[in-house]
Amino acid sequence: MTATERVTAAYERISTIDRPEAWIHLRPLDDALADAAAVDARVAAGESLPLAGLTAAVKDNIDVAGMPTTAGAASYAYLPDADSTAVARLRAAGAVVLGKTNLDQFATGLVGTRSPYGAVRNAWDPSRISGGSSSGSAVMVALGVADIALGTDTAGSGRVPAALNGIVGVKPTKGLIPTTGVVPACRSLDCVTVFARELGLARMTVELLSGPDGFDTRARDDRPGRLAATPLRIAVPAPHNLEGLADGWAEAFGVVVERLVDAGAEVVAVDITPLLRAAELLYGGAFVAERTAAVGDHITKHADLIGTDLDPTVAAIVQGGADATAVDYFHDLEQLDQLGAEGHALLDGFAALLTPTTTWHPTLAEVAADPVGANSRMGRYTNFANLLDMSSLAVPAGSVDGLPFGVMLTGRAFDDRLLAEIAASVPGVTVDLLVVGAHLSGQPLNHQLVSAGGTLVADVRTAATYRLHALDTQPPKPGLVRVADGGVSVPGEVWRIPAAGFGRFVGALPAPMAIGTVDLDDGTSVTGFLCEPYALDGARDISDLGGWRAYVSAVTGSGA
Amino acid sequence: MTATERVTAAYERISTIDRPEAWIHLRPLDDALADAAAVDARVAAGESLPLAGLTAAVKDNIDVAGMPTTAGAASYAYLPDADSTAVARLRAAGAVVLGKTNLDQFATGLVGTRSPYGAVRNAWDPSRISGGSSSGSAVMVALGVADIALGTDTAGSGRVPAALNGIVGVKPTKGLIPTTGVVPACRSLDCVTVFARELGLARMTVELLSGPDGFDTRARDDRPGRLAATPLRIAVPAPHNLEGLADGWAEAFGVVVERLVDAGAEVVAVDITPLLRAAELLYGGAFVAERTAAVGDHITKHADLIGTDLDPTVAAIVQGGADATAVDYFHDLEQLDQLGAEGHALLDGFAALLTPTTTWHPTLAEVAADPVGANSRMGRYTNFANLLDMSSLAVPAGSVDGLPFGVMLTGRAFDDRLLAEIAASVPGVTVDLLVVGAHLSGQPLNHQLVSAGGTLVADVRTAATYRLHALDTQPPKPGLVRVADGGVSVPGEVWRIPAAGFGRFVGALPAPMAIGTVDLDDGTSVTGFLCEPYALDGARDISDLGGWRAYVSAVTGSGA
Repeated sequence: MTATERVTAAYERISTIDRPEAWIHLRPLDDALADAAAVDARVAAGESLPLAGLTAAVKDNIDVAGMPTTAGAASYAYLPDADSTAVARLRAAGAVVLGKTNLDQFATGLVGTRSPYGAVRNAWDPSRISGGSSSGSAVMVALGVADIALGTDTAGSGRVPAALNGIVGVKPTKGLIPTTGVVPACRSLDCVTVFARELGLARMTVELLSGPDGFDTRARDDRPGRLAATPLRIAVPAPHNLEGLADGWAEAFGVVVERLVDAGAEVVAVDITPLLRAAELLYGGAFVAERTAAVGDHITKHADLIGTDLDPTVAAIVQGGADATAVDYFHDLEQLDQLGAEGHALLDGFAALLTPTTTWHPTLAEVAADPVGANSRMGRYTNFANLLDMSSLAVPAGSVDGLPFGVMLTGRAFDDRLLAEIAASVPGVTVDLLVVGAHLSGQPLNHQLVSAGGTLVADVRTAATYRLHALDTQPPKPGLVRVADGGVSVPGEVWRIPAAGFGRFVGALPAPMAIGTVDLDDGTSVTGFLCEPYALDGARDISDLGGWRAYVSAVTGSGA
Repeated sequence: MTATERVTAAYERISTIDRPEAWIHLRPLDDALADAAAVDARVAAGESLPLAGLTAAVKDNIDVAGMPTTAGAASYAYLPDADSTAVARLRAAGAVVLGKTNLDQFATGLVGTRSPYGAVRNAWDPSRISGGSSSGSAVMVALGVADIALGTDTAGSGRVPAALNGIVGVKPTKGLIPTTGVVPACRSLDCVTVFARELGLARMTVELLSGPDGFDTRARDDRPGRLAATPLRIAVPAPHNLEGLADGWAEAFGVVVERLVDAGAEVVAVDITPLLRAAELLYGGAFVAERTAAVGDHITKHADLIGTDLDPTVAAIVQGGADATAVDYFHDLEQLDQLGAEGHALLDGFAALLTPTTTWHPTLAEVAADPVGANSRMGRYTNFANLLDMSSLAVPAGSVDGLPFGVMLTGRAFDDRLLAEIAASVPGVTVDLLVVGAHLSGQPLNHQLVSAGGTLVADVRTAATYRLHALDTQPPKPGLVRVADGGVSVPGEVWRIPAAGFGRFVGALPAPMAIGTVDLDDGTSVTGFLCEPYALDGARDISDLGGWRAYVSAVTGSGA
């Protein structure tokens, strides 16, 4: 596939997925095509470009030459002459930038709703949050528009949205990817991060973007990290550290732990209270003053825009740092040093700490009702990594109630490769998926399941609470919808797909299709295809035909 | 020599050198002898103790079990149950602690005068400052009482007093020697340092004290530093960076540079303005709030003691940090990062930066007249090292006008061994010394010059402005004193002594002998023995006999 073909496909896909709020500035197609043509020409001329033609989305706090950088606030926008270091290296490797993505304003939030450009809806369920602050970047990767997206991560912004959208988010060791051309959140803590649907691509991209650039004063040379020892020893939080997880998440986490143990790892529960307390310092103490130092003057100067261009929650958080004294800071630093020493000590002898990436997946409404409280639950396992100079990456690990579940590996600085090695070695966490239409065996889209590594597990029937509609899509697809009365039991197949492959699969899902939970006639439930209600208007109800194959057979005259 | 003999000799020497203010708590002789006996017993039992029987002085902001730690303020004193990590390791290696030394209060100062326990007078010239804040430690090493002394260094406190007293001061990379049991000055910047008369002993001691102790949250494992490349490339400050040096110091620095070049080194002048600006941030910005965080509450609570137990200058500096905001701190940190990046970049390709250790050597009166201004000149070349995470060491490099002159090598973190290697390879910077009495060739103390590596340079005569007295000392010594009228020209010898050896030599100098500048009859001047005036009372004036040998010959009936 050429760069031109990829870019063309990406823009077509953008038009079908109904996530306009994910972009702050989408490049005109012709501009992107011009870049793609240049990449194709370089390839034709014999250049070896590791990311040739891959499409890339860039969080809008990272400079792309000639496009405004807003950091999520029009009042803050400036027009950079030059690419940020990360974008320049991404382009040099052959990627084509599609545009700048929405974010929690000034990268302050883990929800993806704190933006005057709109709350970014989740890739799997538009009623839920995307997670943030790198919201648009994560959703564009999850929905298959961008192959790679750049985010930033201070408190978890490069990992939480990866978990909530079922993709990979790599937060390298602080300083490996220079932050030149990145709007600071907490300048001394910020990391540029990479999203992708596959770990290998995300890691390779991180490697391509790494290395001092002569401008970022905090950039660091890579160092040889540790190697994996045998047996692999992994720390996990003690049971009481896992309190407050969403329903079913502790069990999903337990499944990942079991798979690790089955694969020969030694998994030990440790009380990670010092890390969780360090996490609380990020917003609970004087450290937040680094955000004030970065953008506090802008907010003070434009106080009249709070509530319009400036997000009130973000403004309050940023300005909250103004009251702290330098003495407060040094007291907090001492406390952090103590907690960090304890935290690092309890991970001694372990290759990494495995945790859930976040703690729950709220709806947009839940976050709107309690913007600070809902957000603060999200960073429990992510907030401490940068404060304590740790490497971390988030990977998909199955689903719960039709929504993605993700886990995170966190290790010492410069253990980036070790974390990736461990993540790659976790034997397939899988997602069971009910299909009732074009993905059934022998149907036109079944190849997507097969190429994602899926295997047929069982022929099943839904509970008798659904109706099936024939949607006006190409290829034709059914819309499964639960009804209060008059439902029927619909036949289908359950396919088991590796979690990583599932991300790729969901990435190819066009609206109005959605992923949700479907009840089966044996009383269990399973992740399955659902349909957004708007698409049912005028669609033919085919429930009484006895399933999709029967319908196809009826309209084409051929059996399936 | 046994530990017992060394300790006995040290206490005898303390009684002759007239520096009672150097101690805050000197241990009772019997306590020290008990420790010495224990060391001797361990050695007799076959233990190999690298510092067996060496006498040690400990700055009084470093805990010694059972002795009060004052940090220079009686109101702050506490009685630690346990040795600090550094002292515990020092003792484990066989050193015997003599007591706790005076310091600039709360280690805040580079002068050695900011203490209610008295201004510590310089080892070479009691009218001048010792330098600080590790004043008593440096002077006790310079005067031969302690073989080793512990200091601390945040702004230069372990290097400036080394330079002003003609000894070695090693400031290792931050975190190598744990600061457990050390009163914090700036907790995140403080280093424990080692003074000795010889580099080899200082370095060995640093190695013995290094390594995480499980308590200091900022302790770091050592890392392999760089190795010396050939040719050795050394950066020195550009000429305008050397403005403001005391008379003759630029020339003395030039001599060291010449020796390096003669030895094959490539010495390049670089503009170190970024480092000098970083140095100014230590007290000129929010970083001083770390001192406030450490002891500000104590000063506020005991404000009534300012002017008595609490030094007014120190109190003002420490409390000056209370006004800075955390936002100020983060702005200053950004500036420091920028200056640090520039500073590190300009040292790229060099093994180390060579500078004078400090800029001048004021009298006690000059510092009393301008306590802040006089002090602030002292830290020009030392203040930046800890802020920018650099290793550094100060070594003697000759003398100017009868006072020691010292230079400093500063390098990257973990380059400690490289710096020592370079310092050891600098071919002998020497001191020319006039002797007129017991140190003349063939006289009883001449062996001290020989064993210090000295060689006879010339037979000379002083200008005709001196009188010579026979002092009541054992062995008999002359007292040379300059007079306004009626002086004579006194015969003597000029010996050339390696600077390092000179430190050892001065260390053996008992009161009332002093080192100063003597004019010669050819119009030049040279460093020479002088005599404190009090000792002349009742001493016989032997000026007219034609020199010390003639006097000895006259009283003993034997020629020399």
